[in-house]
Amino acid sequence: MSSSINALVFDVYGTLFDVYSVKEKCDELFDGKGEEISILWRQKQLEYSFLRQLMGQYEPFIDITRDSLKYAINKLNLEYNQEKELVLLEEYKNLSHYPEVETVLKEMKPKKLAVFSNGSRDMLEPLIQNSGLSSLFDEIISVDDIKQYKPTPASYSYCLKVLGLEREEILFMSSNGWDISGAKNFGFKTAWINRNKLPIEELNQKPHTIYKDLNGIMEWK
Amino acid sequence: MSSSINALVFDVYGTLFDVYSVKEKCDELFDGKGEEISILWRQKQLEYSFLRQLMGQYEPFIDITRDSLKYAINKLNLEYNQEKELVLLEEYKNLSHYPEVETVLKEMKPKKLAVFSNGSRDMLEPLIQNSGLSSLFDEIISVDDIKQYKPTPASYSYCLKVLGLEREEILFMSSNGWDISGAKNFGFKTAWINRNKLPIEELNQKPHTIYKDLNGIMEWK
Repeated sequence: MSSSINALVFDVYGTLFDVYSVKEKCDELFDGKGEEISILWRQKQLEYSFLRQLMGQYEPFIDITRDSLKYAINKLNLEYNQEKELVLLEEYKNLSHYPEVETVLKEMKPKKLAVFSNGSRDMLEPLIQNSGLSSLFDEIISVDDIKQYKPTPASYSYCLKVLGLEREEILFMSSNGWDISGAKNFGFKTAWINRNKLPIEELNQKPHTIYKDLNGIMEWK
Repeated sequence: MSSSINALVFDVYGTLFDVYSVKEKCDELFDGKGEEISILWRQKQLEYSFLRQLMGQYEPFIDITRDSLKYAINKLNLEYNQEKELVLLEEYKNLSHYPEVETVLKEMKPKKLAVFSNGSRDMLEPLIQNSGLSSLFDEIISVDDIKQYKPTPASYSYCLKVLGLEREEILFMSSNGWDISGAKNFGFKTAWINRNKLPIEELNQKPHTIYKDLNGIMEWK
């Protein structure tokens, strides 16, 4: 499709790793409420990252992940305690990656591979370590280094700086429509991994291409 | 409770007016899908205002309201057309206000009363006009004048400038927890109108006081 692409940059949560794989552990701890908790947890996690950035009250993603879990548990009228919190935050370092991830990364390896995430290093690095995928990545890039959450232009700009490439040389992949909009807005080539068959976000930033999972990107070899 | 309060500032959507009162018209146009549409519409409307601010792609709230409606209809696999869009956007200028609003505003009238909203004037002014409440407000303040959505500190700062008061003299009311967090973060006194019995937002900005509807604010007379 294009040999001008020299680096593949992957979002992490929802793109390489299934954030809803916490469901089982949530089910165990909260008696069958796993699905509800995992959906609300993720929704509030994103919302809090946006709101804190807007308020000028940045907080690392690990703390936002804790805060949003607390909200989700309170909202569902379940009993919150620190022990359960610790178990679930630990679970976030052991999310499952999607089945095609390893094969696709290996196939694309001749190119530079990086992850670029809102996650802070204390959650991102153990996750990638535990997944057994670390050796495949050339860079782990966290917005926490500059305290600018995606989708601010400053966040994508930092990613570009770390990679030391021109923005046209980068293909950015995310399953999060808002993240694709932000990356496109900044000037990356974008591939939306639309795992959940969602409609396009109405943010006036259409992705360059859309795939149902990561297998689609093999055409950029 | 405090005589040092000289102005009462009200958020509009969700606080004075029920954004879910579009439900009936949605039901009519989309065969009983009114509740689903109205919930998703509101959720995406807020999300798009946050995301556009973060991306540096401000767009007036009337356009965000149109975009988010389109997303909601697509997400629910319903048939979108421009005629229905026009009817529903018109409906947004005729939202119902909550039953206690008029009485409470009249009781509090000796103080300066203002609305402060993310809404652009082309939707905000007709709404307040149509409600019959216009004569009760001293100011209609829209973030659109400076293109800074709440909860950015710049938005609340603009509100303060228009009112020409000290921030301690202002009591700000909103049913939106994120808006209360933003206002508290800026330094307003805040009353969260918790109409839906929601848990507190975990954004480290607890409101000064919480009421179940606007009747509670009468203690600030």
